[in-house]
This record gives sequence, C-alpha cells and structure tokens, in this order.
Amino acid sequence: MSDQQLPNGRATAEMVAARAKVSRVAVSRAFNPGASLKPEKRELILRIAQELNYTPDRAARALVSGRSHLIGVIVPDVCSHWESQEIDALTTALQAEGFATLLFKTRTDYSMDEKLLAYMRGFNPDSVIAFVENVKPATLVRFLDRAVPIYVHYPHPDEVPPAAEPLYDRLNVLQRNGIEQAVALLQGYGAQRIAYVSGLDKSRANTAREKMLRSVMAARDLPPPIVVAGDFSYDMAYAATLDLFRLHGGADAIFAANDVGAFGVLDALRHELGLRVPEDVKVVGFDDIAQSHWKSYNLTTVKFDLDERVRALVRLILRRLSDPGMPALEETLNTRLVVRSTVG
Amino acid sequence: MSDQQLPNGRATAEMVAARAKVSRVAVSRAFNPGASLKPEKRELILRIAQELNYTPDRAARALVSGRSHLIGVIVPDVCSHWESQEIDALTTALQAEGFATLLFKTRTDYSMDEKLLAYMRGFNPDSVIAFVENVKPATLVRFLDRAVPIYVHYPHPDEVPPAAEPLYDRLNVLQRNGIEQAVALLQGYGAQRIAYVSGLDKSRANTAREKMLRSVMAARDLPPPIVVAGDFSYDMAYAATLDLFRLHGGADAIFAANDVGAFGVLDALRHELGLRVPEDVKVVGFDDIAQSHWKSYNLTTVKFDLDERVRALVRLILRRLSDPGMPALEETLNTRLVVRSTVG
Repeated sequence: MSDQQLPNGRATAEMVAARAKVSRVAVSRAFNPGASLKPEKRELILRIAQELNYTPDRAARALVSGRSHLIGVIVPDVCSHWESQEIDALTTALQAEGFATLLFKTRTDYSMDEKLLAYMRGFNPDSVIAFVENVKPATLVRFLDRAVPIYVHYPHPDEVPPAAEPLYDRLNVLQRNGIEQAVALLQGYGAQRIAYVSGLDKSRANTAREKMLRSVMAARDLPPPIVVAGDFSYDMAYAATLDLFRLHGGADAIFAANDVGAFGVLDALRHELGLRVPEDVKVVGFDDIAQSHWKSYNLTTVKFDLDERVRALVRLILRRLSDPGMPALEETLNTRLVVRSTVG
Repeated sequence: MSDQQLPNGRATAEMVAARAKVSRVAVSRAFNPGASLKPEKRELILRIAQELNYTPDRAARALVSGRSHLIGVIVPDVCSHWESQEIDALTTALQAEGFATLLFKTRTDYSMDEKLLAYMRGFNPDSVIAFVENVKPATLVRFLDRAVPIYVHYPHPDEVPPAAEPLYDRLNVLQRNGIEQAVALLQGYGAQRIAYVSGLDKSRANTAREKMLRSVMAARDLPPPIVVAGDFSYDMAYAATLDLFRLHGGADAIFAANDVGAFGVLDALRHELGLRVPEDVKVVGFDDIAQSHWKSYNLTTVKFDLDERVRALVRLILRRLSDPGMPALEETLNTRLVVRSTVG
C-alpha cells in the first residue's frame, strides 16, 4: 500500500483505509453522516483519519463523483416566520440525509439576480428548491448542469397546465380543503360579509389563495370578498384593517393571507378599533406558524403540515438523485383548518 | 489561443477570455458577485460564457485558490426568532460580499456531532461562526484546515480570561449597558421585587445575562432577583410565570431572558392571572426582535442592533481572510434599552 502523500502533506483515503484495515468505500461512508456504517467502524476510521491528517476533500470528490451534497434553496429577500421555520426544518432533515443547505436570497422585488444564479451554478448543487415568482424554470435550468429543480406550486382554479419542457419536479400544495373548512366555519358562526387582507401580489401562493377563496365563496352563494391590499407583513395588515373599517364599511369576518398578517388584523381590531374578536369580527389566518397558539392571538388558521412538506421535498430530492432520467416527479400536500378562538 | 475543451465538452475560462477580449482574471471576477467589474464588461463575459457553455467550476477553483467562498454557521437545533433573523441578515450581508452561508445544526442539547464537524471540514469553509456552548474552540480548530473560527462571546463579571491558544476571533457582546438601563427604569417606576425568567442554562448568553442582572441589582442595593427556570420558549415562560405567582409569592417586575419568553410572561399575567401590565406587574424582555413592536405585546426590551452585529461579523471574516497570520481579532457590540409600554 503506497504511502504517497498529496503535495500539501495530507494523507490519502487509501492510506486511511490501509491503516484501519477497511475498504476505501468505508472511508467515504465514514465522512458522510447520511451513509450507514457500524458506529465502532466509523469511530475507528475517523480517529485514524485524524492521526494521519486526512480530509475527504469535498472539492476533489465533487469533481470525481459529480455530487456536491449541497442543496440550493432560493428564499425571499426578507424571510418571514414561515420561511424561517421551513428553512430550519429543511436544514435539519437534509443534514440527516447527508446534505448541507446553501441559501440564496432574492432581490426585494422577489426577482433573482442572474449573477447570483451563475454564482450558485459554481457550487454544483445536487438540487435546487425554488418558486416560480423568483425565477422561471426556463431561466433556472440554464444555470444547472445536472440538477433538476424542484418548484413549490400552488394550484388554483383557472391556471394553465405547465409545459413539458423544461424538466422540473413539483410539490403541489392544495389550498382548497383548508379554505373550504374556514369559510364553512365562518358561515356556521353567521359571517356574511367577508374581507380578504391579501399578501404580496407577486406571490403565487397569495394569488392561488385569493382565487381559491373566491371560488369557495361563490360555490356557497356568498358575495365576493372585499379585498384590501396587504403584503404579508403585520404592519400593512394592521393599516389595511383600519382602512377596511374607516373607509370601506368594515366586515364581520376577515381572512388574512398569512398568520403574521392576521396578528396585525387582530391588534388593529382590538387595540385601535375597540372591536371584540370573535364577537364583533371573526378572523382566520394561514400557515399555522408556532406563534399562532400564543394566547394574545390564539388564532384559527389554515395549516399545511410543515413536517410533511419538508419530508415531501426531501423525497423529491432523493428520488430524482436516484434516477436522474425520470420524467417530472410530483408530490402533493393538503391543508386543513386548525380551530382556536378567533372565529367562535 | 487554444480551443481545447475539458473532457466533458465544457469550455475553459481561457476560451471565454479570448472570445470576450478580456483578461482571464476578468472572467473570474465576472462570476464573483463580490468582485468589482464594469457592469457592461460583466454582462458581455456572462453572455459569452453562456454561449460557450462555461461554468467556473467552484470545486476546481477551490482546490487551486484554497478559497471556497463558503461560511459555516453553527446554529441551535431549533432556531428561535433571534437566530432566524440573524441567519437571514447574515446571509444577505455575506451574499453581497460574494460568500454563501452553509448552516449546520447542533443536537437538541446544543452539543455538536463530531461527524458533522468532519463533514463540515470537507466543504473547506473560509470561516466558521460558532458559540462556545456548541463546540469548544479546541475541538473546532481540529476540524478546520485554514479557517480561524469566530466566536460570539458574552462577557460577564466573574469570567476567566480566554487562553492564548487555540487562535480564534471574537465578537464581544456587552450586556451591562442595556440591563442597567432596564433596572434603572424599573426602579424609577417603583419596582422593588424583581424576578428573572431564565433561558436555557447551557446558553452562555443566558448565564452572562443573569450574572450581569445580579451584579447591576446588587450595585443598586436591590435584593437578588427571584429566579424561575425558563428555556427561551414562550410556553416555559408562561408556565414559569404561573409558578412565580401561585407558588413563589409573585413579583412587581419580571425580566425575561428573551423577548419570546417575555411574550409568554405577558400572556400568562394578562390572560390567566388577571393582572395588568404595567400597572400591576412590569415586564422587560431581551433581543428586540421584530415582534416586540406588535401591539398585543408592545414590549420594553434590551436591544443589540442586529445590523451592527452582522456588520461586525462580516468585518471579522474579511479582516481575517485578508491577513490569516494576525493575532486574535475582536469586535465589540453594546446593548441599549428600547422603551415601549410594558414598564410605565
């Protein structure tokens, strides 16, 4: 067994394998937290690697194997609570599978700097998770050599089916179920004049949410919702609620595009307009972020299960990597209503 | 000019330089968002690179230059709002300097899996930001070939000065100022019996916070604080507040180890104990996260400026990379009180 070292004085994987009396593959596995290996074997290999000053140069390995073990995640310029929770859960789940997450921020208008895409390309990610409003599939695939991107998609009533090209995998998030349950509950408690405090209009999640709400309300013979413009933030939703009551005649129920907006709605109603929730006005949110259970809000809200969402994304990544040639893969997630105390 | 291609059919940087009539260095700069280059020149180079199907293989470049443009950030298993805001701001600031952030999660008990450290080593980060309670400097440096790690440090009254070895850079966060201002305000509004709802006892930030509070209160002839155990979460702080009043005789002011805990304290006081804030009990938090201004909380809290903190971390990274041989670098951050409506 050769005792040749690399020019910088570091040991090779073969040297470690020889000293530990294991295979070269076992040495690779020892350095990949996601690969299974007997704990004692791993300890031995890591100890010997330490003694011999061996590092599994990921850069060198990436060139040979074509795998970087990096997953690119494109996130909005300012992360909301929802995105933070998602990034957090995703990082943990991917770490367990042997991947590291690389975050790329969009511009403030949600668009993606092509310089940044070129930069991301240089890291050779194994996969990229993106949203259509940040970068279209046709643009993104120009910057990916191997990876097939994953798009999070919010189906809605009058959308156009996607083209066959370019190839990308999809996580479909179905919002109808949870929205239907919310409207049914509001009607059950007597609401007739329903307002919608929207999110950013560039957001596909928001567009789908509004269209789905209109569709559900029309099917239940309700007049269309009074729409006031928000941007997913607490402050805009607070201001929009004041406008709704001071300029647009108010409402007996308000559906906010996200939970953080719902908190703004609740605080405006209670602290500035002197109205009681749920007695005077009912409020529903969307996301079921951790803070929704805080007693000052105790918000009734539409939930997609974060753990399910993260597992579905990880499954798409693993399925695609195991068979790069497959046609477009899909996973589907549903939503449901979490009832707390802001409706009745 | 050679028209030789790499084995996989991709163009070389030299080919791009030749076609664009620029230097090889300019081609490198075009792919580094942090490097300055005339916009028109960059557009031209990127366009030609696209046409010739050239990718600046970061893996190959990292082997040659020794720079990966990756910054490792070690974060707790479950990210609080504070960490999420910090990761978000840090990612944006680092992206502007041409770095990408790689996140590594600790175990639930805050400790770091050595397998994960070995894994991180393979990515050859240019720098790593860590906390002592997650991984001691002596352990971390064994897993870093080039990088000098940066530790966020919370000085407190009876601490031992750090050893000279191993080498690491420090961001010192001075908590005395803000805590002093908070206690002065509480005393000014008549508070005499002050409780402290602690954070996780493994957290150095918490330990320093409690010691600093005791020191400030002793210097102002106040009896020591009544300490009730929290863990930085809303739920534990809520429960701790109920215990404080039902089992330990209550208090006229409560200092929470962080804002999220303060929200739990406020909700327990108002929604379950029927007490008014600030009239019956005063509450102070720590962090000044974005939600502290929400009307349902409108929390008086101790703030360290997040933007300053991120700028200080980026400065440490850049200073160290520009001169790897320098002795230990330090940056210092102060805290101050943000007065809202939970004290008076």
